[in-house]
Amino acid sequence: MAKNAPTVIGFDLGGTKMLAGIVAADNKLLGRDKRRTAGDQSADAIFKRICKTIQAAMDDAGVGRDDIAGIGLGCPGPVDSKDGRLQDTPNIRLGNFNLRKELEKQFGVPVALENDVNTGTYGEYCFGAGKGVRHLIGIFPGTGIGGGLVLDGRLYRGATGGAGELGHMIINPLGPLCGCGQRGCLEAHASRLSLAKDLAALSYRGQATSAELKDVTDIAKIRSKTLQKAMADGDKRAEAIIMHAADNLGLGMANIVNILNPEMIVLGGGLVEALPSSFVKCAEDSMRRHAMPGLVKDVKVTVAKLGDDAVVLGAAQIIREQLEVGK
Amino acid sequence: MAKNAPTVIGFDLGGTKMLAGIVAADNKLLGRDKRRTAGDQSADAIFKRICKTIQAAMDDAGVGRDDIAGIGLGCPGPVDSKDGRLQDTPNIRLGNFNLRKELEKQFGVPVALENDVNTGTYGEYCFGAGKGVRHLIGIFPGTGIGGGLVLDGRLYRGATGGAGELGHMIINPLGPLCGCGQRGCLEAHASRLSLAKDLAALSYRGQATSAELKDVTDIAKIRSKTLQKAMADGDKRAEAIIMHAADNLGLGMANIVNILNPEMIVLGGGLVEALPSSFVKCAEDSMRRHAMPGLVKDVKVTVAKLGDDAVVLGAAQIIREQLEVGK
Repeated sequence: MAKNAPTVIGFDLGGTKMLAGIVAADNKLLGRDKRRTAGDQSADAIFKRICKTIQAAMDDAGVGRDDIAGIGLGCPGPVDSKDGRLQDTPNIRLGNFNLRKELEKQFGVPVALENDVNTGTYGEYCFGAGKGVRHLIGIFPGTGIGGGLVLDGRLYRGATGGAGELGHMIINPLGPLCGCGQRGCLEAHASRLSLAKDLAALSYRGQATSAELKDVTDIAKIRSKTLQKAMADGDKRAEAIIMHAADNLGLGMANIVNILNPEMIVLGGGLVEALPSSFVKCAEDSMRRHAMPGLVKDVKVTVAKLGDDAVVLGAAQIIREQLEVGK
Repeated sequence: MAKNAPTVIGFDLGGTKMLAGIVAADNKLLGRDKRRTAGDQSADAIFKRICKTIQAAMDDAGVGRDDIAGIGLGCPGPVDSKDGRLQDTPNIRLGNFNLRKELEKQFGVPVALENDVNTGTYGEYCFGAGKGVRHLIGIFPGTGIGGGLVLDGRLYRGATGGAGELGHMIINPLGPLCGCGQRGCLEAHASRLSLAKDLAALSYRGQATSAELKDVTDIAKIRSKTLQKAMADGDKRAEAIIMHAADNLGLGMANIVNILNPEMIVLGGGLVEALPSSFVKCAEDSMRRHAMPGLVKDVKVTVAKLGDDAVVLGAAQIIREQLEVGK
């Protein structure tokens, strides 16, 4: 089934958008397409949309099906890599739909599925901020906090493909409630949603000074951009809340340094992209205060470089390596 | 320099004892010797004692120098595996003494140094509780808490050989002071020394009922055996303190499960050896309550099987693999 074509497709199946990229042998993007993900659609409708996005990217690149050797997909949530199904997540419910099998049938090439945070971390490792590094941890604070581990030059998946759930490391058993049901997870201290809760309460108490936050008590309306603007407006109380989250993020990073002794931590995700560099600086300072000196001294902290392309390029690399092994 | 002899030496250089084992090709122990480590001795005196212990084990096994292909050593603290020196630890100070070079000179065979917790974990993985498992975490609560990681069938050392410092994962930023200077490390919540602090205060307040603890306010006198006896005596307050530590240990185990998605956690060390199985049961229950259900459901928790031999057999295996690579 594997073709000797040098070109593969990388696909980022996100909860709000999907993105296909046609990736040449030299890892350059030859074409792309991006569409909104309508999470409330049926599995069949989502599948059709994925196929359309791939086809549009192929048209953009001017390549046909015979030019494509395989498709790699970064998907939200845990992936059963043996089975080829996705577990349902709040934004995409594919139920019992076997995405890998259906895509292989549709395009006639091998398809690899991988968790999107792993895929993005691998993309940064191969082509972005982590080029040349062998031990790299990706941490992506957004609505939640995802993590990916590259250990000794390989994407580390753990026993059942679930490794890297750094966001659910408990850093304070009496801390705020997390979406997973526990208290005090890193995600409950340093994600966008955890900040939205505290900032909505700030507004409710009439203590927000930024026009972006004043009277905004609906946490659904407090997005990463809101935080960005509140900081730009010089809202001191909002800034203190945000920097406290950075401090907590750094504590989580310190734990990872002590456990895994990495060379580099790459920070990405919605919060990191939206907030000024002082957020990352504060997290890094906290990491250096909380980790063992001998382990942290050579750790580099850097911001993800590839943006939207990280998952596409990582997914392309994953299917490329799988095709190599299959040869 | 490598000889084709099938026999290697495994050595456990501990802070209070040293142990040499002669290990045959089938990983059976042909002979052994054990001596006290006198930590206050000079580097030269410690080295001579190591050589004597090795020689005595060889005599016990009836083998000569020509029968030995290499020596593996599990050593306390971080090991600079390139350089061959040990960093000073509270119990052994070898300063600038190059232990690997001197041993290679003395015995005329290649020598490998590795951190003792890593070595013990690797021993359990190869020959003990973890046989047949590919993703295994060793956690050893004693005076402190050490950890070792076997990921995808290989001992994971991290970027500079320091991976596995699970004891210094912060699980509560306002928690008790740790020996590393931070607050709320796992080690400050669930090590023998952390328990000794709370139990000494219990005695000081006149609340201990066990004869073992009554009037014992010197934390140096509260050993693992003291804890064991206090529990056997049915000292309810002491038991509550010890089980609270098990609960915290389980929280740390849950974090490791979420981050690394292992198949098995092996618990060993002084506390686990001394305390009844209810301690491990309590830690396991806490782990299952605190970890993500999908990641923890298949995790096995088990007690280390090899006791004193874990480091000796692990060290023997490490030098054996190094000799294989060198062939």
